Amino acid sequence: MNLIKVRTTSISNILHKLTYRYASSQALVTDLKAIAGNENVSNSASVREQHGHDESYHAGHEPDVVVFAQSTDHVSQIVKYCASKHIPIIPWGTGTGLEGTDKLGFTYFLLNCIFFHIGGVTAPKGGVCLNLSRMDKIISVNPEDFDCTVQAGVTRNALNTFIRDTGLQFPIDPGANASLGGMCATSASGTMAVKYGTMRENVMNLEVVLADGSIIKTSGLKGRSRKTSAGYNLTNLFVGQEGTLGIITEATLKLHATPEAVLAAVAPFKDFQSAVDATVAIMQSGLPVARIEFLDEKMVDACNRFSKLSLDVLPTLFLEFHGSNNNIEMQGQLAEETCKSFECLKFNYETETDKRADLWKARHNAIYAAQALRPGSKAYSTDVCVPISALPGMITFAKDALKRLNLLGPIVGHVGDGNFHVFLIIDPKNAEEVERVHEYSIALAKESLRVNGTVTGEHGVGIGKKQLLIEEFGPAGINTMKAIKQALDPLNILNPDKVI
Amino acid sequence: MNLIKVRTTSISNILHKLTYRYASSQALVTDLKAIAGNENVSNSASVREQHGHDESYHAGHEPDVVVFAQSTDHVSQIVKYCASKHIPIIPWGTGTGLEGTDKLGFTYFLLNCIFFHIGGVTAPKGGVCLNLSRMDKIISVNPEDFDCTVQAGVTRNALNTFIRDTGLQFPIDPGANASLGGMCATSASGTMAVKYGTMRENVMNLEVVLADGSIIKTSGLKGRSRKTSAGYNLTNLFVGQEGTLGIITEATLKLHATPEAVLAAVAPFKDFQSAVDATVAIMQSGLPVARIEFLDEKMVDACNRFSKLSLDVLPTLFLEFHGSNNNIEMQGQLAEETCKSFECLKFNYETETDKRADLWKARHNAIYAAQALRPGSKAYSTDVCVPISALPGMITFAKDALKRLNLLGPIVGHVGDGNFHVFLIIDPKNAEEVERVHEYSIALAKESLRVNGTVTGEHGVGIGKKQLLIEEFGPAGINTMKAIKQALDPLNILNPDKVI
Repeated sequence: MNLIKVRTTSISNILHKLTYRYASSQALVTDLKAIAGNENVSNSASVREQHGHDESYHAGHEPDVVVFAQSTDHVSQIVKYCASKHIPIIPWGTGTGLEGTDKLGFTYFLLNCIFFHIGGVTAPKGGVCLNLSRMDKIISVNPEDFDCTVQAGVTRNALNTFIRDTGLQFPIDPGANASLGGMCATSASGTMAVKYGTMRENVMNLEVVLADGSIIKTSGLKGRSRKTSAGYNLTNLFVGQEGTLGIITEATLKLHATPEAVLAAVAPFKDFQSAVDATVAIMQSGLPVARIEFLDEKMVDACNRFSKLSLDVLPTLFLEFHGSNNNIEMQGQLAEETCKSFECLKFNYETETDKRADLWKARHNAIYAAQALRPGSKAYSTDVCVPISALPGMITFAKDALKRLNLLGPIVGHVGDGNFHVFLIIDPKNAEEVERVHEYSIALAKESLRVNGTVTGEHGVGIGKKQLLIEEFGPAGINTMKAIKQALDPLNILNPDKVI
Repeated sequence: MNLIKVRTTSISNILHKLTYRYASSQALVTDLKAIAGNENVSNSASVREQHGHDESYHAGHEPDVVVFAQSTDHVSQIVKYCASKHIPIIPWGTGTGLEGTDKLGFTYFLLNCIFFHIGGVTAPKGGVCLNLSRMDKIISVNPEDFDCTVQAGVTRNALNTFIRDTGLQFPIDPGANASLGGMCATSASGTMAVKYGTMRENVMNLEVVLADGSIIKTSGLKGRSRKTSAGYNLTNLFVGQEGTLGIITEATLKLHATPEAVLAAVAPFKDFQSAVDATVAIMQSGLPVARIEFLDEKMVDACNRFSKLSLDVLPTLFLEFHGSNNNIEMQGQLAEETCKSFECLKFNYETETDKRADLWKARHNAIYAAQALRPGSKAYSTDVCVPISALPGMITFAKDALKRLNLLGPIVGHVGDGNFHVFLIIDPKNAEEVERVHEYSIALAKESLRVNGTVTGEHGVGIGKKQLLIEEFGPAGINTMKAIKQALDPLNILNPDKVI
């Protein structure tokens, strides 16, 4: 099986499953304008191109029509209409990555999406791309309860700007300025997850439009309590469902106190094994590190070039600590001592806000830095996540496999979670190289499963990892997911053919 | 609607839904012995009585047969057999409360269970109580990854004893020595949730036997990674499903470092409002308190009598801090300063391990202390949970309603979570008083919903709160839960008629 074969299969699957019941794209546009208003529906070439275009190495496939929803009621009516005609619907967040997937997952995710688009938004008889970016109201902020409720199109930067004066922050940081609805749908994660958790731990309630157009709140109609045992945990069923079970229109999110003090540090190591061993030791010590990111020497070199840094070209940890003025230095010292016991060559503190921001900006731009190593290339990101004790072996495996398959792949990762990415730099026109990338990706995922890890720590399944998901869960587990999908979306109109 | 009416309804519902296909209880016993072995199946009067008996004020209803499962394979075969004959199955943990519900939830939970038993285990044509307490193997402990995997019947005390030398603990503490499988099924919580979260945040993977006897792992066949985006979040669908979607046979759990230093404190206040206001202020300050429990003056009085303490009979906070030798005193001081700014009369530290244990034992025995206030009585515990800012108003409402309805109800609660319990002390033979208790419970739940809370913070829904669950979620939300139940248990044999 190679990537091209997956693509072919997905077309035929979807054509087989879906029967469209409208006469033409123009009829669809007319009907949708009646629901959502003329100004919110577009089938212009440029808008369709924008919503079909991506950064992967496959040509874009455009939706027949793009609807800019203004309200939950819009979404509900559009879904009811699409359900009545069996038209597939793809939710769209900010376009920083479909549904707000993080920049790190961007390319990989879009690789999946492009396959999906063939049958989803851009199947021969069309489909609806539901753009939620105009649903951008911050509905309420409750500083005394450390929570807020936002519409799906609010971006994380917009929220953090809005609440700046409250002393609170929403720390989940996938890099891109993703929409919060998209971050919920994809269970976004990123560099801060090691301290603050992923979206799974930070979503308190969701408003979701189901496949029949009905509207639910996943944790009660007005629920904002910190815990509940009321019925099934629908909230965490809809976090990470990648738009296949419902369309998230609002989210109630946990906020966290902005730390009194922040300290960052850059620690280059003699070799990658020492850097990873130091990470494991720091995590096992229970030190509440806020960020701990690993970059191998190739990645550091790429960041130096792309982001105009002058870091030592060595395997490196970027660290950040959040705390009080009283304890922040102690946190740094403990980490420094641990790192130095693992052949860390320097431990440079960075206290200035601007320089710290530059560091994390460079980290967030790592995938672009990687692509820039080879003009005309695209990056394909792996996403395994393993128990922390298996991390050194896993990265060794990843490095050895790069050599064996003769591939260029800088490595970067949220190593505190046991999660890392190899950015495989591909010439998308070279079919033989694409085949080697695929072989690499499969080998890494299988090794992750062997050591009790997962095939995807934060990027999700899409279509590309459906076969691996079966290996991870076995037939009975997959059938359970299928039963839930069938129960909640019996017509298979929501992101059909994805995840399962 | 009163409690008796609910009971009648539930009988007729279940009779309507279930059709038994076996000739007699004896045939059932014979068949089950062939599956599980003679020594693991009992329909003796004493065993049935033990599994039908509870502490509520209704007469017990016994199952036809009790099976002591020895393995997941046993459970799977028994479920397959029961599915083929449409026989209901009730999983049973340690009997500290069905499925390991906490002591605080004990009586309330059993009130639900007794209604359930009428149609579940003890319907006219019988049913199977599946006792998992003999599945008590600790399968693996991975100290380097802060996780372990246990069979469902392992109790939390057995686990903590087993791992004592690793420097790790499993801190979720519902009071009773519940089975971990039961704690997963009911999403147990308790006094430590304010720092360590509930079961929802501490379960990494579950082995579950589904209603057709198939066996799944909810987070991958061998998954132990700290985060994953692989498919739907089945783990958190099965945590808290109260045995209605599947039978939990194994659990992979997060472990936490045993704190280097522990400090407890007892703080009596001039009035309950000050104690609650201090709690709100402590939580809003971000202080990482490990336990913060409120007891009103009636509760303190009851604990003094029952547990031979000599606390001031005043509204009181029990606090506990976990940290390093470096920071533990600072945590205590910050809490003390906050409390004293809210008319706290004393702030007595308790550093001795034994005395601290006595304090928490008294707290865990609070419901028995409450019952002892009135000989022959039973306690019915409410369980609302509200956003922290709504807590003072909510407790005021609870106190006023006690006066209005002329009820005795000491109040105790995990106030750091916004969760508290009124232990309504009832003469179960007094129908008019039972009616007032019911009125009280409904009024409190509705007020909780009004202020964005939940009708149940940790005890679950059972049958008693099904109507309130509909108010909390609305018809569309309930229909979503029903669709999931229908998809995973189409014959409705797993704890039928419960939750939804």
